[in-house]
Amino acid sequence: MDSDYGVLRELSEVQKKRALYQPEVPPCLQGTTVRVEYGDAAIAADPAGAHVISQAFPHTYGQPLAHFLRKTAVVPDAKVISEHPAVRVGIVFCGRQSPGGHNVVWGLYEAIKAHNQNSKLIGFLGGSDGLLAQKTLEITDEVLSSYKNQGGYDMLGRTKDQIRTTEQVNGAMASCKALKLDALVIIGGVTSNTDAAQLAETFAEAKCATKVVGVPVTLNGDLKNQFVETTVGFDTICKVNSQLISNMCTDALSAEKYYYFIRLMGRKASHVALECALQSHPNMVILGEEVAASKLTIFDITKQICDAVQARAEKDKNHGVVLIPEGLVESIPELYALLQEIHGLHGKGVSAENISSQLSPWASALFEFLPPFIRKQLLLHPESDDSAQLSQIETEKLLAQLVETEMNRRLKEGTYKGKKFNAICHFFGYQARGALPSKFDCDYAYVLGHVCYHILAAGLNGYMATVTNLKSPVNEWRCGAAPISSMMTVKRWSRGPSATQIGKPAVHMASVDLKGKAYELLRQSSSSFLLEDIYRNPGPLQFEGPGADSKPISLCVEDQDYMGRIKKLQEYLDKVKSIVKPGCSQDVLKAALSAMSSVTETLNIMISSSNGQTPL
Amino acid sequence: MDSDYGVLRELSEVQKKRALYQPEVPPCLQGTTVRVEYGDAAIAADPAGAHVISQAFPHTYGQPLAHFLRKTAVVPDAKVISEHPAVRVGIVFCGRQSPGGHNVVWGLYEAIKAHNQNSKLIGFLGGSDGLLAQKTLEITDEVLSSYKNQGGYDMLGRTKDQIRTTEQVNGAMASCKALKLDALVIIGGVTSNTDAAQLAETFAEAKCATKVVGVPVTLNGDLKNQFVETTVGFDTICKVNSQLISNMCTDALSAEKYYYFIRLMGRKASHVALECALQSHPNMVILGEEVAASKLTIFDITKQICDAVQARAEKDKNHGVVLIPEGLVESIPELYALLQEIHGLHGKGVSAENISSQLSPWASALFEFLPPFIRKQLLLHPESDDSAQLSQIETEKLLAQLVETEMNRRLKEGTYKGKKFNAICHFFGYQARGALPSKFDCDYAYVLGHVCYHILAAGLNGYMATVTNLKSPVNEWRCGAAPISSMMTVKRWSRGPSATQIGKPAVHMASVDLKGKAYELLRQSSSSFLLEDIYRNPGPLQFEGPGADSKPISLCVEDQDYMGRIKKLQEYLDKVKSIVKPGCSQDVLKAALSAMSSVTETLNIMISSSNGQTPL
Repeated sequence: MDSDYGVLRELSEVQKKRALYQPEVPPCLQGTTVRVEYGDAAIAADPAGAHVISQAFPHTYGQPLAHFLRKTAVVPDAKVISEHPAVRVGIVFCGRQSPGGHNVVWGLYEAIKAHNQNSKLIGFLGGSDGLLAQKTLEITDEVLSSYKNQGGYDMLGRTKDQIRTTEQVNGAMASCKALKLDALVIIGGVTSNTDAAQLAETFAEAKCATKVVGVPVTLNGDLKNQFVETTVGFDTICKVNSQLISNMCTDALSAEKYYYFIRLMGRKASHVALECALQSHPNMVILGEEVAASKLTIFDITKQICDAVQARAEKDKNHGVVLIPEGLVESIPELYALLQEIHGLHGKGVSAENISSQLSPWASALFEFLPPFIRKQLLLHPESDDSAQLSQIETEKLLAQLVETEMNRRLKEGTYKGKKFNAICHFFGYQARGALPSKFDCDYAYVLGHVCYHILAAGLNGYMATVTNLKSPVNEWRCGAAPISSMMTVKRWSRGPSATQIGKPAVHMASVDLKGKAYELLRQSSSSFLLEDIYRNPGPLQFEGPGADSKPISLCVEDQDYMGRIKKLQEYLDKVKSIVKPGCSQDVLKAALSAMSSVTETLNIMISSSNGQTPL
Repeated sequence: MDSDYGVLRELSEVQKKRALYQPEVPPCLQGTTVRVEYGDAAIAADPAGAHVISQAFPHTYGQPLAHFLRKTAVVPDAKVISEHPAVRVGIVFCGRQSPGGHNVVWGLYEAIKAHNQNSKLIGFLGGSDGLLAQKTLEITDEVLSSYKNQGGYDMLGRTKDQIRTTEQVNGAMASCKALKLDALVIIGGVTSNTDAAQLAETFAEAKCATKVVGVPVTLNGDLKNQFVETTVGFDTICKVNSQLISNMCTDALSAEKYYYFIRLMGRKASHVALECALQSHPNMVILGEEVAASKLTIFDITKQICDAVQARAEKDKNHGVVLIPEGLVESIPELYALLQEIHGLHGKGVSAENISSQLSPWASALFEFLPPFIRKQLLLHPESDDSAQLSQIETEKLLAQLVETEMNRRLKEGTYKGKKFNAICHFFGYQARGALPSKFDCDYAYVLGHVCYHILAAGLNGYMATVTNLKSPVNEWRCGAAPISSMMTVKRWSRGPSATQIGKPAVHMASVDLKGKAYELLRQSSSSFLLEDIYRNPGPLQFEGPGADSKPISLCVEDQDYMGRIKKLQEYLDKVKSIVKPGCSQDVLKAALSAMSSVTETLNIMISSSNGQTPL
């Protein structure tokens, strides 16, 4: 019922204390003046796709990066905006709820009101449905009071994930026009931000005055690129799940008779599983990216786990904890191919009961081999982005069953001499999604809300709010904005039955980087995790005392400050320019020429080889 | 591997801080002198069983209650023990791990060493297995250092639940003799404490010098009686589960499309479900005790839930959260009867595959009606106490399926006009069982450990350590000991196929008191819980700040101070005696006689009617 949105509600002691927590804003966002410096035009991360992207986004591709500056920054060509007319801004939660989302609204509200008390922030009720139907709630201090630093999206609600069809896009435009919005802020993950970019482009084309801004909020942590270090909600989800995983580890070690197989929500990429493994040190974690890279079959994975169980039994350990990302099923080549066939048949309108009879011989053979419960789950309709309904497919149960069968075989054969293998399966996801956000997520979301105001004050359209250098304290965070189109890539291979997706630029989810530092850290410890039970319990999420200020381990070890480095490079180039001015000595000029020629040649070779072309 | 027990291990920041936490002890346990006052001989709670119990426990039944007194207490006939020879004490974890167990060991160790540095505390490794095999680890400061205030039982491990057969009891006695133990402390729930009483009796009979002490530690909260207000672990379990349930509520309210059916670990009684409902305010909770009292069938329960779903849909709410205790399945009359038949056939050696064909016609009809997954679970072998394998029976899935079928029928019929009913099922238990214990559980367990030393210093055998007035601050806690046999009752009706259980005294699990204040509190709010979504999020378990010192709501509302009242009554009786001494006036004597005659008559009537007899 609409009247339930934004209602004042009873809070527990902990919630009340949290509602009083006031996040900081970094110096670059303080005061009533917005200072913005524009960098070079941002190019697409995928140079081969740049042409397609620029054609699809003629008004919004190739715009410069924007950096927001502190008062004391000396940047001669910064644009200073000190007049702030009253604005009307709409905000909408798109896609799945992620802890911290409410703080984006709060941060934006504070920034808007700080710059002009007559500005208005309008929340759309029930997500994209509310956007299309113009169901709104004006955000006020009273509405916010019991939602500050609280979990869920229930202040405004959310329903559908996408704003994509022409009808939807036009509906959104009509709403923005009718409500006279100066800007529309879209809170969501990769899909919602792709939609935001599309809306921005369409609005620009149609000369609609509303600017569109995206905010990176998703528990999956898979909206990650040069400009975005992590997403709002990821830290909380990993903390809540790590606590539960650690409790399972302690339980396994106390009871000494179970293997816990735990599947973690987080969509296709394995970021959540990787981070949780780094926090809680379970015996095994099977990352989808590893499986895909090594093209491991379900039997390879089963064998890996069985060998591990056997090795542990030889050390008299008959318990253990195995983490499995929910996206694993799509990383296993033969299961992925089977899913593609099934989805293809769905696409042709074949009903679920008839699909199995129409599979190709090999797919049919695999399908028949699988236990009935998983067959039923594989037959579920794909989601709107053509991926399988990952939260509904119990890969952990499939693996546990296959491992049990194999261990029983080995036991009978006498090759395994440990105790009877016993597995208990879990799926952790929903219980973390509505959690009270961690301090980090509260801070990050609140600051992103402020950044949104700066973006719209600068009149930018089709940008995503960005905060970088996140591993440092808040007062060292760098705030800016990057065109969403520059985060896009173009898929050039078939991905499922929907050929319409091919060649369409989109913000795609980032996989776990198997060359990255976080993964390296996991690999270094994996054999001691496997055999030594060096379980670590980060404890329940704390708001005071030790642990309260911790951040994701993967965020802290990755050396991600891309925006900072872009700025640093600019400083070097400026320095060379200022040293090698007309009037400098021949020697200095020669040295500079020689050095710069070598630098450009090296870079040229690197770029060409990464494009798969012969260097020029 | 034994060498893994008690190892030093890496702790997280939160764990390290917890390891430094020092619980208080109440004044009655401070100092190096033990002062004990004996009350009247404790009678069995169930007077009708008293004779059977006294016959079964000739050496240990009818012993007096013991109260430990502070230094300043003026109690003329208190026994003061100020000499403390070195003792050797064994300690063993029995049954399922419960958060806080480690602190009993720590508290006992501190008390032992404070009274005589030469005393030794010996931990048995791997539970009762270690007790029988004399696998031990001497508890030292070093061993304890990384287990103080930490979850699990992994410092010593645990395996089997029972020490019951003659062979086991004799094995335990042999170990105690071989290790020259002055006392054996058994940490566990109803089953383990029954075993402790049996050991105590057998040891006394055999003139074995080892005294046996029980400690009430179980996450189920079902060891509850006049002497025991709550058990160690219950608070933590309820806090961890309530956090997760609240997160689900927030999630349901944000997504507005799912019903979450959550089954909670906690064995047959519904204490955990009741407490969690009081903490998190879900839409519905189905207590086993209510179902049993009203003899609701599975169809009645399904209809109740369906009507609730329909009432909510009429208020445009298509989401919700329903709590189900894992013991529910045994409270539903027809399912219980079916389980009894199945267990009876198991007892006769019928294999699981053949059971369904040998069921009585009505049981067979019910069995065939049930979905295949639950049939398989019902066929599992019963546990050692003849109850079903509750953790393995997915009652929440059964109910969700029945509700879905019924809602689809109503939708088709047109009597239900809401959205399609969607349920997602969860089982919360294992993920809480290994949690870091709450401050309350840390304190309670640590104090109980100290009480154990006082009991053995007083030379008591067959007693359970008790701490009462728990809802008050630690310095007002009252410490004492009660004979375990006085907590026993005798079952006089058949309970499952094992007729051997009938008539054998045991500490039985306590059900939720449907006349109690905690239940009343739930009932008062149940209609607003159902329709108004007044979800409350107690937040993650905190160790500092608000919420850190909270205690179970059911503990705080119940007015439980039985031991305090026994003492108060004694004071009144003493006062009457001191007023009405030879020499007092006739009037005073007459008034006293008349008043006391009326009191005794009233009490007589009450006792007789509760025994189902005509008053004398």
